[in-house]
Amino acid sequence: MMIYMPIAAALLGLIYMLIKRSWVMKQDAGDGKMKEISDHIYEGALAFLNAEYRLLAIFVVIVSIALFVVSVFVETTHWLIVIAFIFGAIFSAYAGNVGMKIATKTNVRTTQAARTSLPDALKVSFGGGTVMGLGVAGLAVLGLTAFFIFFYQYFMGGVWTATGTKDMTVVLETLAGFSLGAESIALFARVGGGIYTKAADVGADLVGKVEAGIPEDDPRNPATIADNVGDNVGDVAGMGADLFGSYVATVLAAMVLGNYIIKDMGGSISDAFGGIGPILLPMSIAGVGIIISMIGTMLVKIKSNDAKETQVMGALNVGNWVSIVLVAIACFGLIKFMLPEQIAMKFFGENLNEAGKSMPIVIDSMRVFYATLVGLFVGGVISSITEYYTGLGKKPILKIVQQSSTGAGTNIIAGLATGMISTFPSVLLFAAAIWSSYALAGFYGVALAASAMMATTAMQLAIDAFGPIADNAGGIAEMSEQEPIVRERTDILDAVGNTTAATGKGFAIASAALTSLALFAAYVTFTGIDGINIFKAPVLAMLFVGGMVPVVFSALAMNAVGKAAMEMVEEVRRQFREIPGIMEGTGKPEYDKCVAISTKASLKEMMLPGVLTIGFPLAIAFIPMIFGMNHLAIAEMLGGYMAGVTVSGVLWAIFQNNAGGAWDNAKKSFEAGVEINGEMTFKGSEAHKAAVTGDTVGDPFKDTSGPSMNILIKLTCLIGLVIAPILGGHSDETITAEEVNKNVIQVNVEDTTENNVALNVITLKEENL
Amino acid sequence: MMIYMPIAAALLGLIYMLIKRSWVMKQDAGDGKMKEISDHIYEGALAFLNAEYRLLAIFVVIVSIALFVVSVFVETTHWLIVIAFIFGAIFSAYAGNVGMKIATKTNVRTTQAARTSLPDALKVSFGGGTVMGLGVAGLAVLGLTAFFIFFYQYFMGGVWTATGTKDMTVVLETLAGFSLGAESIALFARVGGGIYTKAADVGADLVGKVEAGIPEDDPRNPATIADNVGDNVGDVAGMGADLFGSYVATVLAAMVLGNYIIKDMGGSISDAFGGIGPILLPMSIAGVGIIISMIGTMLVKIKSNDAKETQVMGALNVGNWVSIVLVAIACFGLIKFMLPEQIAMKFFGENLNEAGKSMPIVIDSMRVFYATLVGLFVGGVISSITEYYTGLGKKPILKIVQQSSTGAGTNIIAGLATGMISTFPSVLLFAAAIWSSYALAGFYGVALAASAMMATTAMQLAIDAFGPIADNAGGIAEMSEQEPIVRERTDILDAVGNTTAATGKGFAIASAALTSLALFAAYVTFTGIDGINIFKAPVLAMLFVGGMVPVVFSALAMNAVGKAAMEMVEEVRRQFREIPGIMEGTGKPEYDKCVAISTKASLKEMMLPGVLTIGFPLAIAFIPMIFGMNHLAIAEMLGGYMAGVTVSGVLWAIFQNNAGGAWDNAKKSFEAGVEINGEMTFKGSEAHKAAVTGDTVGDPFKDTSGPSMNILIKLTCLIGLVIAPILGGHSDETITAEEVNKNVIQVNVEDTTENNVALNVITLKEENL
Repeated sequence: MMIYMPIAAALLGLIYMLIKRSWVMKQDAGDGKMKEISDHIYEGALAFLNAEYRLLAIFVVIVSIALFVVSVFVETTHWLIVIAFIFGAIFSAYAGNVGMKIATKTNVRTTQAARTSLPDALKVSFGGGTVMGLGVAGLAVLGLTAFFIFFYQYFMGGVWTATGTKDMTVVLETLAGFSLGAESIALFARVGGGIYTKAADVGADLVGKVEAGIPEDDPRNPATIADNVGDNVGDVAGMGADLFGSYVATVLAAMVLGNYIIKDMGGSISDAFGGIGPILLPMSIAGVGIIISMIGTMLVKIKSNDAKETQVMGALNVGNWVSIVLVAIACFGLIKFMLPEQIAMKFFGENLNEAGKSMPIVIDSMRVFYATLVGLFVGGVISSITEYYTGLGKKPILKIVQQSSTGAGTNIIAGLATGMISTFPSVLLFAAAIWSSYALAGFYGVALAASAMMATTAMQLAIDAFGPIADNAGGIAEMSEQEPIVRERTDILDAVGNTTAATGKGFAIASAALTSLALFAAYVTFTGIDGINIFKAPVLAMLFVGGMVPVVFSALAMNAVGKAAMEMVEEVRRQFREIPGIMEGTGKPEYDKCVAISTKASLKEMMLPGVLTIGFPLAIAFIPMIFGMNHLAIAEMLGGYMAGVTVSGVLWAIFQNNAGGAWDNAKKSFEAGVEINGEMTFKGSEAHKAAVTGDTVGDPFKDTSGPSMNILIKLTCLIGLVIAPILGGHSDETITAEEVNKNVIQVNVEDTTENNVALNVITLKEENL
Repeated sequence: MMIYMPIAAALLGLIYMLIKRSWVMKQDAGDGKMKEISDHIYEGALAFLNAEYRLLAIFVVIVSIALFVVSVFVETTHWLIVIAFIFGAIFSAYAGNVGMKIATKTNVRTTQAARTSLPDALKVSFGGGTVMGLGVAGLAVLGLTAFFIFFYQYFMGGVWTATGTKDMTVVLETLAGFSLGAESIALFARVGGGIYTKAADVGADLVGKVEAGIPEDDPRNPATIADNVGDNVGDVAGMGADLFGSYVATVLAAMVLGNYIIKDMGGSISDAFGGIGPILLPMSIAGVGIIISMIGTMLVKIKSNDAKETQVMGALNVGNWVSIVLVAIACFGLIKFMLPEQIAMKFFGENLNEAGKSMPIVIDSMRVFYATLVGLFVGGVISSITEYYTGLGKKPILKIVQQSSTGAGTNIIAGLATGMISTFPSVLLFAAAIWSSYALAGFYGVALAASAMMATTAMQLAIDAFGPIADNAGGIAEMSEQEPIVRERTDILDAVGNTTAATGKGFAIASAALTSLALFAAYVTFTGIDGINIFKAPVLAMLFVGGMVPVVFSALAMNAVGKAAMEMVEEVRRQFREIPGIMEGTGKPEYDKCVAISTKASLKEMMLPGVLTIGFPLAIAFIPMIFGMNHLAIAEMLGGYMAGVTVSGVLWAIFQNNAGGAWDNAKKSFEAGVEINGEMTFKGSEAHKAAVTGDTVGDPFKDTSGPSMNILIKLTCLIGLVIAPILGGHSDETITAEEVNKNVIQVNVEDTTENNVALNVITLKEENL
């Protein structure tokens, strides 16, 4: 029965989403002008989605054919992977669609609600976010679980037999198609969306603010609608697809590793879940996570109409932290309920038998629970780190502000240095998380740490999507010339939204990092290679190449923004020149043309980085294959490449996100005024101009190239996982129960209370040998 | 006898150096004003050196005590390592001293020579560079060889016995102290020097050019002497110590790997070199390289007084390329002469025997020669890549110039993107070099590729040191108000010097990368670990941590420049305020105070990055040791850390060097005028101002943080090598000659002519198994 629980939870989440959606849609959408602007944004968003879908359709067809050809020639790959891939793409695209639509409908309703009160405005905007969050999480879990059940029935008749491990491997390999489909959409949404949002932003500003001297969000600017559409494309659809992909991939990787737990326990276990408890566990956590997130979103509310940023942020924090605590409790219960009291797993290189073969170690399954706590801890702490390095009023920002007084050059250096230094605590946190969750429960522990962290995805996305909705609501208030109090209220929401945007990026990169590690572990296990030894020169060479790819990818993404923005600039200039009365407000700008240009340019410009992402791992796998190189050697090289991309990608993501966020808030600091060398300095000062330059550099960093790293590292590892069956030996060596009994080493739960959890596996091993 | 050849070559080089030096010193040093300025620079340089030496002395004492303590407690470490360490530091420091002194004496003589003719000016300035180059290379080879002979006598009585491999390991481990000493000096010279040069530069410009409105190199600016000293400190002493360290470390690593060749051949070989041909070979190549470089420097000359940049560059290129070709020929001869016709070595993971133990493969020793060609190829091509991305008139520079027209923001983005994209060809080149030299002759091949590349060190340094000498000569011409023709001539030399500075950085990072790889291989072999498997979570975690360190190091270095520059700014402001008549030229600025501030600030600010560099590997090795972790597991973790630092450090070095170089030349492009959107644009335009901002950001990139990466990665790997005996098992398993004969696989030289050299080892193996 437990196998259906996640589906039930997903459906429950989707039903709640529908109820919430109809509630949001029933809210007052305001009067003529507001509605008109909102409709423009809505239509612009739809235009982007439709263009994206057309391109996507072509992409999906090509990849499907390639996958099908592979499945025909490679015995270990089943053609059903094509179906899974297509559905993964469709589900993710549909989730993005739901999110974009609700976001572009909620913005104007938030403006309208802000005319009455701040609590109402929060309720509406966060309601929209909730729809987005539950839509993404619900569809992800629904799709993945449904396909798992289908494949489990199809390949195994829903029963674990003597060849269970091997059959389940086929099930999960086929299921990887779903994840690949989802992540492919994320490539388009995150990278394409990232280029779109900044091209429109820069284009609108360069001609509007700088050349024509009209304010931001001025309806006379033809690019202003594209700019507002961009907020949704990048921050709503992009982030949604990113987390959809992480969610699915994390659960999948954990299932793969769960399958090997069963193998290490002698090939089968008997439990109340058809003997597949360790495989079902990650799905169950994901399912329960949806219900918990639902509860969390209900807690987000404020009462006072005079509330400030702190109270609004506090309301979001209550919802977030309650969700995290509830997930921890749920993990405890589910692990106690679903896992055998003790499980066996191999720790690489530990507990070798006489033949030098690594033998499983039996551990208390509570250690898996501790690993999930590690994941939840990382999810919480990474946000704090991000907030420290990018938050208004924090030391790093104040330093950048000071450095702005000596010009743009020093401002830029300070911002770059801030982003670079921020990698220090972040990477130490990740490294500690990898080490400790592995020491607790092997790579299954790492994958479950990621799963637990991702369980609150719906809540995270609700908080994330609320930001751009509030941003849009402010834009609509400005464009429709509302009373100042309305803009004041939306500004409070917007300011909170800026903070959540930064911390959300922290969560997204942490999730991408852990997901990639889990995928990496699943990859190695799938291929059955003997670890990844960087003392082999080809592997080391690929580590270098992998390290380089995120750097080049980032540069391409940044250049893409520049090119797309230039096309936008020319179009806006043309309209100012050719449409009579446009500056007087009598001529009507052709908003749709600007939207079309952003759409086209962004999708065109994402091609090259996309090809780089997909092409490199394929080239590394297939070119040496043509030359007849040993498949396992290739698998190891590809593993080295994956590690290089992940390590370098995580670094560049943190660096770029935080540098960009820091520049942004350094610039914003001037709005309220800052003290530089004892003097209060405001907007319009030379120092402020320097800070604006910094923000220009930071924009593509934080909204295009930085977040794209998430997709790059996940997609790289997923492609590896999908081609693993072609490379891998599907190592047949099964360890019999007797062998396990003879070789196992018992690690008791009491040992985990020792000072050094990380080391006790090793210590114990030595004592026993 | 061959063992003394490198010493003889080194002595010959040093004698030639002395002759050349006395020739340079005999040249006319010009009249009063010129001499006065030159003396100021000379004294400033000495002041820096003396301050550096004081700090160094403390550092050397501390490290010596630490090393001594280790040698008392760790059986495998001999106390003589302390002596080697101290001498390594002294030799490197003395080489820097020689270089700094001659550079600061040659500058004014170049100015004086430029009053007569351009060919004379080149002869004098390049003569100074030659002294520097031969001094560094000569002392490096002399010191290393002398200590090797001493230890060889001391530990082995100069004879290879049955325990040869083990005894030689002790010899080479003790010799590693010399390399560690040399590289420690490089830390001070490169990082401290890098901070010094930019702090003085920025400080002088900010108050002089920007606030007081006086031109660059104006004698009224109190910081102008510090600025000129900085050129020598950073580009002469820093680069010299960097290459001194690479030279020594590369040869050492190749010797370590040579020792394992003998081991893999059954524990001893009989040749005309006391059975240590493979160990002597790298030293011999280094020795011959000195003679060849000497010849190369003699070829650098021009005849026409009307020569332009192209001809001067051409003259340098002739010398450089002739050296490279001669080294290739010498490598052929030496390898033919010194190596047995066939040698045996292990290729990791290949040719396993029944017990899964890796067995040696016999290869034709000509393959080692092919590997040296790979190294020479890399050295040549990396310079071309660097020149493409940073050269005046090249496409990337023109693009940055175009992007300057829309402001500093777009200029910065374009520069960053250029630096980032330049990692693409560079890393692919390195990856191909690693792979192919390994496929040819294992890690011995990689180390010898590096050795061959480094053989032309003296020539490279001569070219490198010539740049700052010419730069200084121009400064002196300006300050002493020479006729325009003099400045014109020095400007030609200076322009060429700027190009060689960029390509020299390319050579330095390539050498650092290959050196680190060779050290990495030596480390793994020393510790006797079973490769470095990143599928073990602690190793993977350390790979992440290692990847982060170069990023944080760079940020610290950049911030250090900012802080040191601020101290300088305040001092210059104070002098302008307090010294009467300073602006009218009647009051005399206190140059020495500025020099003192730069010196103190730079040495103070290099502490934190220095501690980071040395502290991390020590912490990774010793903290887990305290907790009782298995030593081999620690060795593997440290290996992961080293790989992370190397991969990330190489990337950040290329990125920062090339971005900085590109911004610099984009700014310089405006001097001759550039076409932007069909209009000629010059200095003083808005676009030029944007380019100046870019250059401000690029300055610490290319002169401080970028080049520091070389030291970071080499020192990290060297520290690993020095503590390897503490971690390593000194694996005793010797492979007997019978075992070798039973298990070896013959790889004939004909196979290398096949299309795919990289794969044939593997292919052959499969056929044989």
